[in-house]
Amino acid sequence: MENVNMVPDMDQAYEDSFYKIIELLETKKYFHARDELLKHNEVEIAEMLVDIRREFDLKTMVVLFRALPKDISVDVFAELSVEDQVDIINIITDPEIRYILDELDFDDMIDVLEELPSNIVDKILDKTPKSERRLINTFLKYKEDSAGALMTPEYINLKKDATVREALDHIKDVGLDSETIYTCYVVDSGRKLIGVVSLKSLVISPDTMKVSDLMHDDPVVAHVDDDQEEVSDLFTRYGYLAIPVVDNEFRLVGIVTVDDILEVIEEETTEDIERMGGVIDTSDREYLDRSVWQHVKARLPWLFLLMCSYFVTGGILARFEDAMSAVIALVIYMPMLMGTGGNSGSQSSTLVIRGMATGELELGDFIKVMWKEIRVGVIVGICLSILNYFRIVYLDHNPPLVAVTVCVSMILIVIIAKLIGSMLPMIAKRIGIDPALMAGPMMASITDMISLCTYFIMAGLFLHI
Amino acid sequence: MENVNMVPDMDQAYEDSFYKIIELLETKKYFHARDELLKHNEVEIAEMLVDIRREFDLKTMVVLFRALPKDISVDVFAELSVEDQVDIINIITDPEIRYILDELDFDDMIDVLEELPSNIVDKILDKTPKSERRLINTFLKYKEDSAGALMTPEYINLKKDATVREALDHIKDVGLDSETIYTCYVVDSGRKLIGVVSLKSLVISPDTMKVSDLMHDDPVVAHVDDDQEEVSDLFTRYGYLAIPVVDNEFRLVGIVTVDDILEVIEEETTEDIERMGGVIDTSDREYLDRSVWQHVKARLPWLFLLMCSYFVTGGILARFEDAMSAVIALVIYMPMLMGTGGNSGSQSSTLVIRGMATGELELGDFIKVMWKEIRVGVIVGICLSILNYFRIVYLDHNPPLVAVTVCVSMILIVIIAKLIGSMLPMIAKRIGIDPALMAGPMMASITDMISLCTYFIMAGLFLHI
Repeated sequence: MENVNMVPDMDQAYEDSFYKIIELLETKKYFHARDELLKHNEVEIAEMLVDIRREFDLKTMVVLFRALPKDISVDVFAELSVEDQVDIINIITDPEIRYILDELDFDDMIDVLEELPSNIVDKILDKTPKSERRLINTFLKYKEDSAGALMTPEYINLKKDATVREALDHIKDVGLDSETIYTCYVVDSGRKLIGVVSLKSLVISPDTMKVSDLMHDDPVVAHVDDDQEEVSDLFTRYGYLAIPVVDNEFRLVGIVTVDDILEVIEEETTEDIERMGGVIDTSDREYLDRSVWQHVKARLPWLFLLMCSYFVTGGILARFEDAMSAVIALVIYMPMLMGTGGNSGSQSSTLVIRGMATGELELGDFIKVMWKEIRVGVIVGICLSILNYFRIVYLDHNPPLVAVTVCVSMILIVIIAKLIGSMLPMIAKRIGIDPALMAGPMMASITDMISLCTYFIMAGLFLHI
Repeated sequence: MENVNMVPDMDQAYEDSFYKIIELLETKKYFHARDELLKHNEVEIAEMLVDIRREFDLKTMVVLFRALPKDISVDVFAELSVEDQVDIINIITDPEIRYILDELDFDDMIDVLEELPSNIVDKILDKTPKSERRLINTFLKYKEDSAGALMTPEYINLKKDATVREALDHIKDVGLDSETIYTCYVVDSGRKLIGVVSLKSLVISPDTMKVSDLMHDDPVVAHVDDDQEEVSDLFTRYGYLAIPVVDNEFRLVGIVTVDDILEVIEEETTEDIERMGGVIDTSDREYLDRSVWQHVKARLPWLFLLMCSYFVTGGILARFEDAMSAVIALVIYMPMLMGTGGNSGSQSSTLVIRGMATGELELGDFIKVMWKEIRVGVIVGICLSILNYFRIVYLDHNPPLVAVTVCVSMILIVIIAKLIGSMLPMIAKRIGIDPALMAGPMMASITDMISLCTYFIMAGLFLHI
């Protein structure tokens, strides 16, 4: 019965259409390809253009892009990554650039201008009315990844004393050019934000009611210098559709909308996960769009650093060369102890890093976390050791004292690894380093060192070597 | 100048207020504590209640909760986690339960009912009107984490032939009870979805225009059985505020709104990151709210499994016991090779897992990814080896042949680790296993085995042992 389904398989339809376009392009039937492309919405057209660039080249992508009807081309342009946008700008003509930038939402336009070389920006701004030029220049100055860089000035301003009817009429007049009309803002004569009113409350209220009776007068705000991660936390916490951005004097300077935040969340999560996996990325490009060199640049430094940390580990081993020669069986259990230490530490650091990212864990919870990790470490360490004892004595037929050495080491290593794994990200945050850097690979290197030291100290104690 | 800032530090105000409440509760001044609590919005009150539960106990939290004005208590209840909600329900009286469930949004009510024991649900449904009971029972049957479990039936239905004015009047009548009024839906006589119209287009259009002229007639939809991760991908891709959910016959059965999706994204990201860090979680509770036993249960199985994989590694080492005794220097470079192999693999798996999660990488990109990873591996491996050669020969004063063994092993290990790290998550996805499980810890165990084998085979080749 699975296939008796009237809902079309969208992915399949997309794929089929895409391969049709590829075929048309291969036979240079550009206009047919364009017509096929136009069967999709702007999001899908943008995705297809990116895939076409990968399959052919930038030129083919731009040829198709220019063949799109003007109004659609702007919507498609807005859906592309900034990298692709800049590449297109560098190829198309000045009038085309002008048209696209004029029609783009203000915040999208700023994103493009930020990435263009300053001589091109100057040329574009040259023909822009003075007041708009001033606004653009203000926005270009906001720090990257700040609320200021994310916001748009295209919001709806309502008068406090207006009636619902007057407010709705005003929205009708200016709504088309606003990023959202679903949340409107009330400011005083000094442009200070005094309240927020939702379109919902306007629409369901009597025409004669006053805006001031409907507005929320203690709205949640972001500050223009806030990092975009803080702004996205506000959205997750409160579930709003838009959040106003104010400057130091509490003047309303812009708004951030939830659709932009979805992109920020994806971007920030990718950065976090990549850092936790030992990839320090410098570009926002996706995996396939990064060149081999960009990949090397994102990976080599961290690998290099961690490898150097193993010079210390090697040094430790060298000091115990005699012990190893005496009981070569010890070497056999070394990878297991190091691996389990690394994994135990990774688990703890992952939980703590994520807890801090979602705002659940704070630096003040240091002691609580430590106490929890110690108890978890003791239980986990003992469980793993019991299994190991039997394996070493009865399966590997090694002397019980070797088993005791391994088991006691195991318990200590798991506890220490869990402690370090949980504490290190918190300490990192305290001193202003991204906690995500203290995950997997970093943890493995540190715990390897500690595991070896613990192991050989225990060997000295129990085996007198 | 940093402190000349009229924007109040919200976090500080929150903290101060919270400690005031703690003090009031310690001296049993419950009503003063409640008044302090009421200075905050519902999101903050809910957060404070959770912190109060951690600081005192469930009872204190419920005492405060019951002391809240009725209408606020419902809004606060909606912001709590399902676990806290169920704990509260188990303590408060039947009339209180009834009031809260009546006032909750439909989807929030379903979330609570799902977690309650069936005898309590039956008791509650007993007093519910028959038509609503049937609807509730339908919703309770949807699979957990599916679009069906996420959606709400409280959406606005418009007639195709209605004018803008008629539509707005209708919205005014029913808007208060709808989850959102910003996106409205048009269905035919058979309840099949035929279009979507935004409140924005209604508000900015002339009163006499028809809904059918304004509506989008090829809307993006989710299917009722879709996983919540697929639904959230649609939101990220299209940036919509709400997405309609249809059944097999394309009948509109509910809508999902973006505020619920923000929670889904956080939940799914946490699950992904925890799995990548080797934590298999069974509860949705946060770090501090999980007991020590829950933490052990989430971590021990994976550690145990990975530890067992090191039995194989131990076996490999045992076979090379003679080689190690002969050239004990080899042991010194073992942790470095294993560690670098693990880190190289982690980097690749992290990138590929994230690429698949964001929808950039697909199974069809297998060959492209492989080819990229091989090239990256060769370059990275050679760079790391060059440094190592000099270190081994000139710093450690070991024979050049030992250095050659280590360096050639290093290059091979990095390439193999990068290949496995990138391929394994894709293979996992192909056979229906969550790719996130193929990250850090898993990668470290597998690459450890491969590193050791490669190392000793090279040792045999170059050192003839």
